[in-house]
This record gives sequence, structure tokens and C-alpha cells, in this order.
Amino acid sequence: MHMEFASDNAAGAAPAVLDAVVRANGGYATAYGDDAITKQLERRFCELFERDVAVFLVGTGTSANALALAHLTPPWGAVLCHSEAHAMVHECGAPEFFGGGLRLVGVEGGGGKLQPEPVAVALERHFGLRPHQILPAALSLTQASEYGTVYRTDEIAALAALARDRGMAVHMDGARFGNAVARLGLTPADASWRAGVDILSFGATKGGALAAEAIVFFDPARAEAMAERRKRGGHLLSKHRFIAAQFEAFLADSLWLKLATHANGMADRLAAALTNAGIKPLWPVDANIVFVLLPHALHERLQIAGAHYYVTHTDRSDPANVPSGFVLARLVTSFATMESSVDNFIALLKPTQ
Amino acid sequence: MHMEFASDNAAGAAPAVLDAVVRANGGYATAYGDDAITKQLERRFCELFERDVAVFLVGTGTSANALALAHLTPPWGAVLCHSEAHAMVHECGAPEFFGGGLRLVGVEGGGGKLQPEPVAVALERHFGLRPHQILPAALSLTQASEYGTVYRTDEIAALAALARDRGMAVHMDGARFGNAVARLGLTPADASWRAGVDILSFGATKGGALAAEAIVFFDPARAEAMAERRKRGGHLLSKHRFIAAQFEAFLADSLWLKLATHANGMADRLAAALTNAGIKPLWPVDANIVFVLLPHALHERLQIAGAHYYVTHTDRSDPANVPSGFVLARLVTSFATMESSVDNFIALLKPTQ
Amino acid sequence: MHMEFASDNAAGAAPAVLDAVVRANGGYATAYGDDAITKQLERRFCELFERDVAVFLVGTGTSANALALAHLTPPWGAVLCHSEAHAMVHECGAPEFFGGGLRLVGVEGGGGKLQPEPVAVALERHFGLRPHQILPAALSLTQASEYGTVYRTDEIAALAALARDRGMAVHMDGARFGNAVARLGLTPADASWRAGVDILSFGATKGGALAAEAIVFFDPARAEAMAERRKRGGHLLSKHRFIAAQFEAFLADSLWLKLATHANGMADRLAAALTNAGIKPLWPVDANIVFVLLPHALHERLQIAGAHYYVTHTDRSDPANVPSGFVLARLVTSFATMESSVDNFIALLKPTQ
Amino acid sequence: MHMEFASDNAAGAAPAVLDAVVRANGGYATAYGDDAITKQLERRFCELFERDVAVFLVGTGTSANALALAHLTPPWGAVLCHSEAHAMVHECGAPEFFGGGLRLVGVEGGGGKLQPEPVAVALERHFGLRPHQILPAALSLTQASEYGTVYRTDEIAALAALARDRGMAVHMDGARFGNAVARLGLTPADASWRAGVDILSFGATKGGALAAEAIVFFDPARAEAMAERRKRGGHLLSKHRFIAAQFEAFLADSLWLKLATHANGMADRLAAALTNAGIKPLWPVDANIVFVLLPHALHERLQIAGAHYYVTHTDRSDPANVPSGFVLARLVTSFATMESSVDNFIALLKPTQ
Repeated sequence: MHMEFASDNAAGAAPAVLDAVVRANGGYATAYGDDAITKQLERRFCELFERDVAVFLVGTGTSANALALAHLTPPWGAVLCHSEAHAMVHECGAPEFFGGGLRLVGVEGGGGKLQPEPVAVALERHFGLRPHQILPAALSLTQASEYGTVYRTDEIAALAALARDRGMAVHMDGARFGNAVARLGLTPADASWRAGVDILSFGATKGGALAAEAIVFFDPARAEAMAERRKRGGHLLSKHRFIAAQFEAFLADSLWLKLATHANGMADRLAAALTNAGIKPLWPVDANIVFVLLPHALHERLQIAGAHYYVTHTDRSDPANVPSGFVLARLVTSFATMESSVDNFIALLKPTQ
Repeated sequence: MHMEFASDNAAGAAPAVLDAVVRANGGYATAYGDDAITKQLERRFCELFERDVAVFLVGTGTSANALALAHLTPPWGAVLCHSEAHAMVHECGAPEFFGGGLRLVGVEGGGGKLQPEPVAVALERHFGLRPHQILPAALSLTQASEYGTVYRTDEIAALAALARDRGMAVHMDGARFGNAVARLGLTPADASWRAGVDILSFGATKGGALAAEAIVFFDPARAEAMAERRKRGGHLLSKHRFIAAQFEAFLADSLWLKLATHANGMADRLAAALTNAGIKPLWPVDANIVFVLLPHALHERLQIAGAHYYVTHTDRSDPANVPSGFVLARLVTSFATMESSVDNFIALLKPTQ
Repeated sequence: MHMEFASDNAAGAAPAVLDAVVRANGGYATAYGDDAITKQLERRFCELFERDVAVFLVGTGTSANALALAHLTPPWGAVLCHSEAHAMVHECGAPEFFGGGLRLVGVEGGGGKLQPEPVAVALERHFGLRPHQILPAALSLTQASEYGTVYRTDEIAALAALARDRGMAVHMDGARFGNAVARLGLTPADASWRAGVDILSFGATKGGALAAEAIVFFDPARAEAMAERRKRGGHLLSKHRFIAAQFEAFLADSLWLKLATHANGMADRLAAALTNAGIKPLWPVDANIVFVLLPHALHERLQIAGAHYYVTHTDRSDPANVPSGFVLARLVTSFATMESSVDNFIALLKPTQ
Repeated sequence: MHMEFASDNAAGAAPAVLDAVVRANGGYATAYGDDAITKQLERRFCELFERDVAVFLVGTGTSANALALAHLTPPWGAVLCHSEAHAMVHECGAPEFFGGGLRLVGVEGGGGKLQPEPVAVALERHFGLRPHQILPAALSLTQASEYGTVYRTDEIAALAALARDRGMAVHMDGARFGNAVARLGLTPADASWRAGVDILSFGATKGGALAAEAIVFFDPARAEAMAERRKRGGHLLSKHRFIAAQFEAFLADSLWLKLATHANGMADRLAAALTNAGIKPLWPVDANIVFVLLPHALHERLQIAGAHYYVTHTDRSDPANVPSGFVLARLVTSFATMESSVDNFIALLKPTQ
């Protein structure tokens, strides 16, 4: 019985993406991004975002975030992000490495989302005395967040305004940008630069690609020397057409939004059934992630039946305390999640007589 | 009327230290530490700490801390320290720079001191999932702390035990080590390695030198390649005898402890008078720093009379809230603080009729 | 008329490699290398090299080299390599970046190959005075070299012995390792660790993969913390099965050697025809690269006919001087080079009457 | 018998400098450069260079060079300097460390001086292919050079013009700037920015200070964030008045030039006597350094008599070959060199009957 909710990285690639890679294999193509598929894709990104953008493709979300943050922040600068942001907790210090020793400053916030007030307090507390204190340089938001919540555009705009007042740039970690945009029902432009985002890590991997992420500069002038930064990081692929082809298929006919809508829907279905069973998700299920407190007995039953999901560290929950007798479970759906898989899981929620 | 309590860095140098520098000027001496004064000083440090130690002199406390922490911690490692530690708040990211992008993880703690419980919680929260998460590598204690408090040896030992259990090294930022040792009444050995410290930044500058700090390795084997690290950081002085001479005088006849005892005594005198005036210091006055909440009227009177001290940012206080109508003042004494200066200040505490 | 000799990166992927990627797409797989294909591949590498090895897959040759060199060399260390090595000339400083500011020391050598004598001279010249001078830490050989030549095992062994005498590690940049092994007719073990190599960047991309390179540690104990280094560099792929699948197909049934043998053969064919036409290659054609001086008239004829190849900078030739009236051309073949393509080129060598 | 010619770092400090330090010790002074002596010195530097300059004091020549070069060069940039420059050979990779992995590119040149032609060749050879190749960003000249030669202003201007054409900045390592200016008989302005220098490492330590170097920006706007860079490097002294006082005395009444003139004169005297004895210095004796080939017998006689000087590695000589039967000796004079000391040495040149 298939019940795979461990990670959207555990899914393979969407068939259309794979087809595009196979198709891209015909003949010769100049290496390092100087090929026709890449050139076409760059134009596609400009259309998608309704403005001139500069795009840099890389193979991992960690490199997309780290390159972007390092580009926005001097070594003596700080990036403010959520204390549970992926860049803070799961990238092994990549932003610090790429950024020559910049500092990530974690800010707490309910449901994985930053809020203006605690960000302002952090800015008051740690900065201002030059040259003894580092300079606040960038704000990084994860959209959708690591908790499966999604910022509304007014929330982004409020944070961006605060950042801009301090001369800080705004980065969006969009490893699950598709899930967010699908939920918000907005254009990609409205969901990003029109709300105040300067640079977007636009992820395709979790959404259905093999390995493809785009660093999108909404002000192309700001991208000066990013090509060197990417190359120097070892992130310029030689047979570049294969990564461009992934994105080409991902964006064609709104595939990325269709895949994300499916993943979100599967999470909704899980959330509804869990709520029905008296297990209310801890945070709004805006994207493809559901956090719930599962009673031990149920957890055991699910494990025995073969359900896959992570039990996250209790100290990472917010509110921090997992009640005794419960585990904090994270259920993640993806473009590949089958309805039957969800239904198998749901069926297990009701104890058998 | 002289009332200088802004910083122990505002004092000059103790006359005996200056005399030693002048004395060291005779004749030629091989550069870069291969001179007689330095060699003699290295032996002196071994005696002082009752064991073989490796010593590296540098001109600033920031470089001593950063070089030490970088030496203990890989770039993908973390240093846990108090959230208000000097290395965290006032060194412009030097540890991250010297450490190739290591991370400082701030832990809150009353009175500027770390306590085992919050340190253990931080270790639970942020670490463990290799290779996605950075590795905890060092614990850094400030002794005396930025709040003027002093760790007791059992407190150090408890933190060191916790660190050692995790394979972490223990660093002590001893910019005011003399103030702490003078207060504790212990030998330098008991106050450092016997309590579990691996590397000490032993400061002389604040204590009465011109510019002299020592990085002391209690296990000399651990110092491998520290010479390269210091040179590469630009911190190997060419006319090295002049920095060695400062320490020579600082350590001779326990001058460092006599100077620290004076500074501590002046702080005690301030604290007692303030307490008498109903203004209880916020934290124990263990060293040469006194934090108090001053009513606005008194603050103004002191300012007008020419008293020098810093009003620190209210958000940096712990407890965080400075009551309305008050300022949080930091008063720092030094080896050079005159009793008359303290008494001038005290006299102002009583409102004139 | 197809005559593509610009780069082996301009070819696509071998069909068998692409098939394996498509095949790997079935079902779910744990992310980040904890999947069955990767596990199987790790065993395959051990068999291939006839010993326990530790393997880390990455997507680019630049990252493979930079991660390997940074792992072998402290920030105050030097890597000696050929002055025209890829790591020196075409990686935008990636080794220095990953290595925290290590230094590449270029050594001249005929035909792109290092020779013991100039390496020994370089070691005499730049090193030895601690802590003022950096420490020689690694020697990096490119096999096959950037000039299309191949080190014989006794040549490698002589360089490795010299390195080992100085406590230096030996790295092999094997972006074209297959071409070298195919030409030498040795086992991979004989061509690497048995000749003295400690770490190998084993390239599959140029040889026929989409994007797949392996960092192979012949002493697995030496790989400690390499997982963190890779993750921190953003080079740990989440859907890792897809990169493992590429290597699986690349190694199966000696595909890599068959593809390399084809590429080498096409270069031989070019070289023989050029020699016949009186245009002797500048260096032995050991792999899939041919360097020749083309008279301007011929060069023009080839360009008009649509031949693709790079005219390299005259200052990079060795001997340095390109005679007036000539261009220095680099012709690169690949697994995908068609005999007809070579023959088209050859036909153009004879001036039409 | 006193014959100290090992290094100008082996001398102590000039009495006037030491007096100024002692004088600076009176009373309190705001730390970190916000004191009256520093403020006054900043104005003095502007007068000295006849324009607005930004000045940053540090304690070592290595930090002055590394901070300056890192400020001018991105991590993916290159600094071209003489292959025997101090920054290249004797700073343990400090420029690479401070510069986030920038690259030093050594260029050969007779007598320790760069010449336009080899610099232009180096720029042709290694650069131009973006983003694969690093970007040339700065040219660093040592004045006086490590060989004791001095650039004439037209030589500097020619190199600076070449640099400017490529968008590169010009740095001057002036650890012995005084020796050069004293010899040239020019104003400091003519010897630096009027000849095309952008940033000067102006050394006082070798010239007679305890430990004092100034990084001088001739365009103050270019110094943005240098304060952070210095602090982060651990090079902002807390009791800053003591380093400022050294420079104050060094510059007062042209003391620096008087001291340099004496050192140069002592070198002239040595050179003349050596030439008379048939031992012609290898390079023009423009400053306080004399390189000569000494026959073994004479070398032995000098050693026995107690003469101190370095026998440099034969491979570092240019021309490279030290004839058999000779050693290559480097004799360095300083402000403290006594005429009698020189005469003692000279007397030994004539073999006793």
C-alpha cells in the first residue's frame, strides 16, 4: 500500500520534463548556456514575469539561495530570515560560505512566516553601531514556507517596505513557488516583484523537474558578475541545454501550476480528512505540506501500514511543545501523489473495530 | 570634574607597561617573535598556567577571539556563545570571516552568562542531521562577561562537560580575564584549563597594556598551523618584542591582578553607593562593570556634570524592558579610575537641596 | 556539412545514459543519495577500482575539482598544477573559493604535462619559510591533459613520489579520464591509485553523460566531512538517483571506455590525415584533442565550409609562438563524432583545383 | 663588533616615535579612532598628500596590503604583482584570505620591478573569457621594491596607464615608501597619486615606528565599507591613539624622510665599498637594500666576525643562477644603522695579509 508523504524530493520527474530532456539531446549545442534552448528560455522568463529579467539556472535549491543571498549581501552583512528557514537550518551553512562569512539572523514567527514586528525588533537589536556591528543587507522569505503556509501579497509588501526602508534587498526562496502561486491565484509577477521581491529562487525540482532551479533577478542590472559567481561556485553546467529543457517543459502550458495545483489538492484532501478525524493541522494548509500532532497509537498504525512521513524534532515545532502521547508529523504531497495513496492513508485514520 | 566610565579602552596604558616598551627598544632583535623577550615570555606563560602552553600574541581582542574560534571550528561548524557576547555583537563578523563562514549561534542567558540548560536546548534544536546541518564545534564563554558578571568554576565546568560530551571545544574570551581572576581569587590555571577551558583569549589591553592580547593553547599540540593562521590574518607583528614587552610587564609581580583588583574595587564602590541611593545594579557586580537603571532626572544631572558612560540600547537589556522614565546605563571602571572620580559621581547621586 | 570539433561538451548524452535516467524515474526514492541506485553505484565504484573507495557525485567538473582540492589543502596551502590546467585557467577561481583562499601555483610543462624537474624547482622557489610562506599541499594532474596528451603511469608515479616526499597529496583531474584509460589500456586502478593518485575527479559529462562527475577517494577515511563540504557548496542533488543512474549506465558494460575509444579513434583519424597533409599535430594525440597550426588559407576554407573548432589564444601555445600566417587550432572529438564528419573535414585539407 | 644588516625590522623604534607614544598616554581618549590625536593625524595626511584622503591605520604591513588589495578586487578578480613581491612570497596568502580567494598573478621583472611589456603579456594570457576566467582588477607595485630598487614616476605612470586601460586599480606597497621618496626627491603626492596610484600602503614600521602602517585612499569615496573590512579583520585597535601617535611623530618635521635618507646613505656607503672591492651590487641601490654575490671565503670571514645578513635562496635571484663559489647576500640598512657598523663591515672586505 503506497503512502509516500516524506518529501516532494522523493518523487521522480514529471513525464513532460523528462521528454523535453530526451528531445534536447539531438545534435550539437554550444556549451555553458550559449545554446538555442537556453536563449529561448530566457525570453520565456521575461514573458512569464512581464518584464526584463536576468536568469541563472543551477541544479540545486541550496545553490540558488546561497548564490542569491551572497550576491545581495557583503561579507559584513546580515540576512534576516525565519529561524526555521531552509537556508538557516538545512543548507549546512551554504549562504555563509558563498557570502564570505555573512551572517544569517533568524527571526521567530508563527507558522514559518516572518512578520514585520519581530523583524523590526531584530533590526533594532543587532545593528547600527558601525563598524562594530554588521550591516543588515537582505531579507529572505520562503514562499511557500517550510510549514506549508503561504504569504499573502500584502504580507510580502509590508515586509518588503520594511526592508527597503533600511536599504535591504528582498529575496524569496521559492523552492515551492509554484505551490504558492497556484494557491494565491495570482500572476507570477504579482506574486513576486510587484509585491517587492528583488530576487527569486524559482524552484522546479520539487515541483517536477530532475534538477533545475532558476535565480531570477527582477532588475537585470543587479546581476553584474553573477555569471562569475555561479561559475566560481561550480554551478554553471556545461551541457546547459539539458537544464534549460527542464524549465522549458515545466513552464510550457502552465505545467508547473497544474502540477502544483494537484499537489496542493492532495494536501487539502489529507487536511480535510485529518480535521474530520479530529486532528486539526497545526498551521493553515496553503501548499503541499500538512503538520499534525498524531497520537502514538495512530502513528504506530500508520507506520506498520507503510506510510512514509517525517516525525520532526519536537523542539522545532511552534508552538514548541508536542503534548505527551503525540508525535509531530510532517506530511508532504507532490505532483506525483496519487489520490489512492491519500485515500489509503485516510482509511487508516479510523481505528478498525 | 573627572568622571570617566565609558570604557576601559578609554584609559591609556599602565606606566610599568609603557616603561617595558621603552626598555625593549635597546639594540637589535630578530623580527617576528624570534627574539629574547618573546622567548622569555613564552616560558613565563607556562609558569603562570602551571603547564606547557602555546602562546600567540596579537594586537586586538577581536583578532584573538576570531583566530581562536576559527582554529577550533570547521567552516561547516558552529560556535555557541551568549547572544550578547562581544564576538557576536561587536566584532563585525570577524569569527565568521576568519572561520571561513562558520556560524555563531547565540544563546540567551541572564546576566550575560551561559547556562547549561539553554545551551543543551540550542544543541537539540539546530543540529544533528548530517550533512544538512552544521556541526557544533565550540562553546565560547566571556569571562568576565559583557554584563560584568563572572562565571564560577563549577559553572564553567558544567558548561565544559556539556561541550565535551558533544565533542566541542571550549574557548574563553578573557578580554577581562584579570578582572575575573582577581575576583575569584583563584590561580589562572584553576580559572581556565582546570575548569575545562581549551583555549583562552587572554586580554591585556583593557587591563592596562597599549595593545596586547594572547591566544593561549592549553594543549600545545592543538596549535598546529596557528602560526600560519595568524600570519595570514596579518596579525604577526614584525617588531614583536614590543608586544611581548607589554605582556612581560603586565604579568610581572602580578601587576595584571593588582590593576584588575583596583578596577573591580572602583566598581564595587560605585555599586555600593548606587545601591545606597536606591539604585540596585541589575546584575552582580563581579568585575569592573555596573549596569543600572537611572531615572531621567539623575541621568541628566550626571550628563551636565560631565559624567561619561554609555546608555545602552534598551533592547539589549535583560530583562528586556527599561521602564519608562529610566535609561539603562553602563558604567565601566579601569586600572586608571581614580577614587576621586568615583566620589565625584557618587556625590551627584544625592539631589542637591 | 557537419564538422563539429569545438568541444566534447557540445555533444549531447549517450542514448544508454539517457535511457537509464528515464528508467530511474519510476516510483519514489529517498532523496540526497539515500536511494537504491546510488547505493548500488557506490558498490560498483569499489569493484571498478578494486578497493574500498568513497564516492561523491556532483554535476560539474569544476565543482569536482574545487571540492577535491579544497579537501586536500588548507587555506594557507598551495596546489601545484600545470600553468594551463583547467583548474587554473577556466574555473574562475573555484579552487581558491572552495579552498578558503588557497593558492594555485602554475608550473610550465611541454604538451600540458607536468614534469618532476620543474615541479621540484617550483617547490624550491616558493616554499619553506614558515609561517611567512604557504605550504605545498597538493599536486594536481590533468589526465588526459588539456593538450590531449596522456601521462604514462611511470610519469604519474614519479610525480606522485615527489609529492609524497613533501607530504603533498595527489589529485587527478579526470574530466577525460576515460580517454586516458582507453588509450593506456590499463585498469582504472592501475591508472589511478596504483600509480599514486589519492583523489580522482572522474568525469562522465564530456564522455557521454548529461551532467555527472564523481569525486573518488581511494582512502575513504580521508573523506571525513566531505559530505558537509559538498552540501555546503550546494552540490548535493536532492533527486540524487538521476545522477547515479547516469554513472550506472556509463560504467555498465564498459560503455565509458567504448565511447572514449571511439572519440580517441576519431582524433587519430584526424591526426593521421592532417599529418599526411603536412600538418603535424603539435603534441602527441593521446586522447580526443588535436592541436595543429593551420595556414590562414586553409583555416578560412574550413570556416566557410562550416567546420567548428576553437582558435586558441596564441599566447597559450607551447611553444609560445604561432608563426605568422598560421592559426593555432584545437580540434576536439567526442563519443558522438561521426566518421563522415571527420571525413568531410579531411576532404577539405586538399585544396580544390 | 656590531654589523646588523639582516632586516630593517630588527631595529627598534626611533626615539621621537617612542616619545610620542609615551606622551599620548596622558588621560582618557575615546577608543577606536575617535580621539583627538587620530583626528589631527587624518588632517595631517591630507596636507601631506595635498588632497583629501581617507586613512586607515593598522599594525602590520601584511594587513595593510591584504586589506587594500581585497578592497580593490572581487573574489573572482586577480591582482598582478611582481613574482617576488612581498604580498606574493611572504604574507602566507593574506591577500587571498582577505580577498575571499582572489588570485595573485606573479609577473617576472628585472630588479624586482614590473615592466609594462610583461604585464601586458600576462593580461593577454590569462584573462578575457568570461565567466570562465577571473577578471584582472588591480596592479600592485612595491616601492621601494624587495630588491632595493625604486620605480621612477614615469615607470609608475606607464604601468598605471596600462592598468587604467583595463579598468584595473593601482596599489602601491609602500612598506619602504620613505626610502623611495627620499631617493626620488619628490613630494609624496608626486610619488603616489599624481603618478597614478589609487591606494598606498604607507609603512612606518620598517622606517622607525613600533608597529604602524597606513592605508591611504587617494579617492576617499572608494573607502566605503573599509571601516567594516578593517574591524572584521581584527585590525581596528581599541586604544587607537597609540598608533596615531606613532605616525604623528613619524611625519612631524619630515622625520620619516630624514630617517630614510640615513638608511639609504648607509646602503650607498656599503654599495660603494663593495663596488670598490670588486663586488658590484646586482641591482641599483636605490633604497636601503644591497644584493651582492659574495665569494664563499669572504662570506665565511664575515660570518665569523659576526655580520648579520640573509643569504637568500639561489632560486630567488634574478638572474637565477648564483655562480658556484658564491652566495647571494641581502644587506639591509635602517634608520638605526651606525656608520661604524658599516665601516666594520667594509673593513672586512679586504682580506687580511
